[in-house]
Amino acid sequence: MKFAFNMPTKIISGRDVIISNYKIFSSLGKKAIIVTGRHSAEANGSLADVLSALKLAGVGYDIFNNIMSNPTIDIVYDGAKFAKEHGDDFVVAIGGGSPMDAAKAIALLAAQDISRESLFSGKYTDEILPMVFIPTTAGTGSEVTQYSILTNDELETKTTLSSPIMFPDYAFLDGKYMCSLGKNTTINTAIDALSHAIEGFLNKKANEMTAIYSEKAIRIISSLFKKIEENDLSLEDRDNLLFASTLAGIVISHTGTTAVHSMGYSLTYFKDIDHGRANGLLLGRYLEFLYDYIPDKVNEVLSFMNMNSVSEFKDKLDSLFGEKEKITKEEIVIFVGKALAAKNLQNSLIVPGNDDLIKILEDVFLGA
Amino acid sequence: MKFAFNMPTKIISGRDVIISNYKIFSSLGKKAIIVTGRHSAEANGSLADVLSALKLAGVGYDIFNNIMSNPTIDIVYDGAKFAKEHGDDFVVAIGGGSPMDAAKAIALLAAQDISRESLFSGKYTDEILPMVFIPTTAGTGSEVTQYSILTNDELETKTTLSSPIMFPDYAFLDGKYMCSLGKNTTINTAIDALSHAIEGFLNKKANEMTAIYSEKAIRIISSLFKKIEENDLSLEDRDNLLFASTLAGIVISHTGTTAVHSMGYSLTYFKDIDHGRANGLLLGRYLEFLYDYIPDKVNEVLSFMNMNSVSEFKDKLDSLFGEKEKITKEEIVIFVGKALAAKNLQNSLIVPGNDDLIKILEDVFLGA
Repeated sequence: MKFAFNMPTKIISGRDVIISNYKIFSSLGKKAIIVTGRHSAEANGSLADVLSALKLAGVGYDIFNNIMSNPTIDIVYDGAKFAKEHGDDFVVAIGGGSPMDAAKAIALLAAQDISRESLFSGKYTDEILPMVFIPTTAGTGSEVTQYSILTNDELETKTTLSSPIMFPDYAFLDGKYMCSLGKNTTINTAIDALSHAIEGFLNKKANEMTAIYSEKAIRIISSLFKKIEENDLSLEDRDNLLFASTLAGIVISHTGTTAVHSMGYSLTYFKDIDHGRANGLLLGRYLEFLYDYIPDKVNEVLSFMNMNSVSEFKDKLDSLFGEKEKITKEEIVIFVGKALAAKNLQNSLIVPGNDDLIKILEDVFLGA
Repeated sequence: MKFAFNMPTKIISGRDVIISNYKIFSSLGKKAIIVTGRHSAEANGSLADVLSALKLAGVGYDIFNNIMSNPTIDIVYDGAKFAKEHGDDFVVAIGGGSPMDAAKAIALLAAQDISRESLFSGKYTDEILPMVFIPTTAGTGSEVTQYSILTNDELETKTTLSSPIMFPDYAFLDGKYMCSLGKNTTINTAIDALSHAIEGFLNKKANEMTAIYSEKAIRIISSLFKKIEENDLSLEDRDNLLFASTLAGIVISHTGTTAVHSMGYSLTYFKDIDHGRANGLLLGRYLEFLYDYIPDKVNEVLSFMNMNSVSEFKDKLDSLFGEKEKITKEEIVIFVGKALAAKNLQNSLIVPGNDDLIKILEDVFLGA
C-alpha cells in the first residue's frame, strides 16, 4: 500500500460556479491576468462569466489571449512580462490544455526570475502567482496538475515544467462551456483524458489511490463512446466527461504519462496532429504491445470499458479517428528517437525499446 | 455534477514511511508536541518511529500523553498551555480518533487565543500550528478531516470544532501499527470507518466525488468481514483497512455524518460505549429505516458489500458485536432528545423524527 497523495487544488464543480463563487477572485488578488486563446473563451461564454465574476468581486483584469495551440517557451515569457508590466497579481486561465499549461508557466515567471536555461530544472523558489483555472475542454486535466507542457523548438519536442508549487489554487468545472465543441474536438479531448486514465493505470507509479480514479474515469468515458461518435452529448454527459477528465488529471499528476505520450509528442510537433488525436491513434496498438507481457492488467482496463479484446478497442478508436495521416518510415525513425529520449517513457509498465516503438508506429501508420 | 473537493492533507502511505520521510518533520518546525494517549503508541511502535524520525531530523520534542478516550474540552486547553509553555511549534498526533481530534484543537489553541465560549464558533483566524498525524487504528479517518470532536459536559454530548485550517498537513499511513490491535478494537474501528463511508453515501451532501471513495471503502471493509470476525488479519489486510478508513475520512470531511452518529454520541457519553461500537449497533437498524423511503440507495450500499438484504447486514453486525448493552426506555428518550439537537442529523437523506429515533433505539436495545 505504497503511495503519496497530494491534491492541493480546490475543485468546485457545478452549473454557474464561477459567478456564484466570485468572492474567491477577490480573495486572491486585485488584478488578474486572464490567460486564454483567441476565440473559444469568448465563444463558449466562459470569458463572459469570468468577467462578470471579476466585476462582482471588484477585481481588475488584463486579457492575454495570445496563447496558441501547443504554447511555446517564448509565449510564456511574453505573458509573464505582460503580467509584470500590468501589475497583475494573480492568474485566471481559461481554455484547453494550451492556455492552462501556459498560464502555469506565466504564473511562475511573473513571480520569479528564471532563465531559459533553468526553465525546466524544477529548481524554483516558492514564489508563484495564485491561479484559478477553468477548463473548457474535457480534456487535458491540466486544471489539477502541476505540469506545464511547452513546445521546445531546441529539442524539437514538448518538454514539461513541473513543480508542486504549480498546482492551480482553484479549478472551476462547468460542463456548459463544452456544449458547442465540435465533434472532432470532443473526440480528441475525450480520448486524451482516456489516455491519461489508461496510461496512469498501466504505469510504474500507479498505486491504489490513482487506480480508483483511473477506473472511474475509464468507465465514464467509455460509457459515452457511442454518444461521442454520434456527437449526441447532453449537458449532463458533458459534465460527466469533464469530471472524468479531471479525475484522469489527478491520476497523471501522480503518475505522469507513458509511451503513448512519448510517441505522441512527435506527431504533434512534426505533423501538427492534435495532442489528443495523437495519443488516440497510438493507444490501441500500445495496449496490443503490452498485452504480450501483462495481459491481466490490459484485460483489467478492457473490463472497465466492457470490452473483450484489444481489437475491439482498436476498432472503436479507428472508428472515432477515421483515416490516419501519412507518416514515412524515415519520420518514424526520428519520432522513435524522440520517444526514447522522453522521460515519461520510463513510467511505462513495460518500456518499449527501439524496435518495439518502430513496430508500433509502422503498424499504426503504414498499415498492419 | 455539483460538488466541491478540498483535500489539503498530504497523504504518505507505506511501510516505515515515518522514518523514511524524517525531513518532513524538520520542514515543519524545531520542536514538536507529541499528542497521544497513555499506552498504545509506545506499545505498537509508532512512538518509537516518531522519536527516531525526530532525532534524524534534528528536531526536539515534548510528549503530551494525557489524552483520554473521548477527549474533553479541558484536556485540549491543557495541551495548548503545555505546548506554549514548552515552546513547541508543531504538533505530531499519534493514535486513534481521540488523540488526533484533541491534537487539532491543541494546534489551534496553541496558535490563537479562543475562549471556551467561542470554541465551537468556527470563527478563528488563520493561525494554527503545523500538524503531522499518524493513525494507529483503522479507524476514524481523523488524519484527513478538519474535525475535532470533543466531549462537551455542558451539553452532555460530543460537539465538533471544525475549520478548513484544521486539516492535518501530513498523514502517515502504515498498517503495521495496527497489527497488535485486539479483536474488539479492530471490529469497533473498522465499523466506525464503515459507518463513515455509508453515512457519507446516504447523505444530502454526498456527491459524485465522495461516492467514489464511499464505494471503495465499503467494498474493502466488507470484503474483510470474515477475517475481522476471526481476528485473522494479515499485515496487508491491515494496510487495506487503514486505506479504507482514510478514504472514508475523506468522505466525511466533505459530507459530515448522519443520524447514526447523532444517536451514537449519547451511547458513548452516557453509557461509555466505544464510538465505533455505538455506530455499529445502530447502523443496520438505521438502514432498515431508510429502506422504507429510499430502497434503491440502500440496495446500492448493500451491493457494494455483496449482500442481498438489510437483514443480512444486520446479522453480520450482530455477529461482530455480540450481546448489546442494557438501555432503558427513559434513557432512550434522553438520547433521542440529544440526537434531534445534533447538527449532523440534518445531513441524513431521510431525517428521522422523534418517533423514528425512539423506534430505532428501542428495536436495537429492547429487542425487535
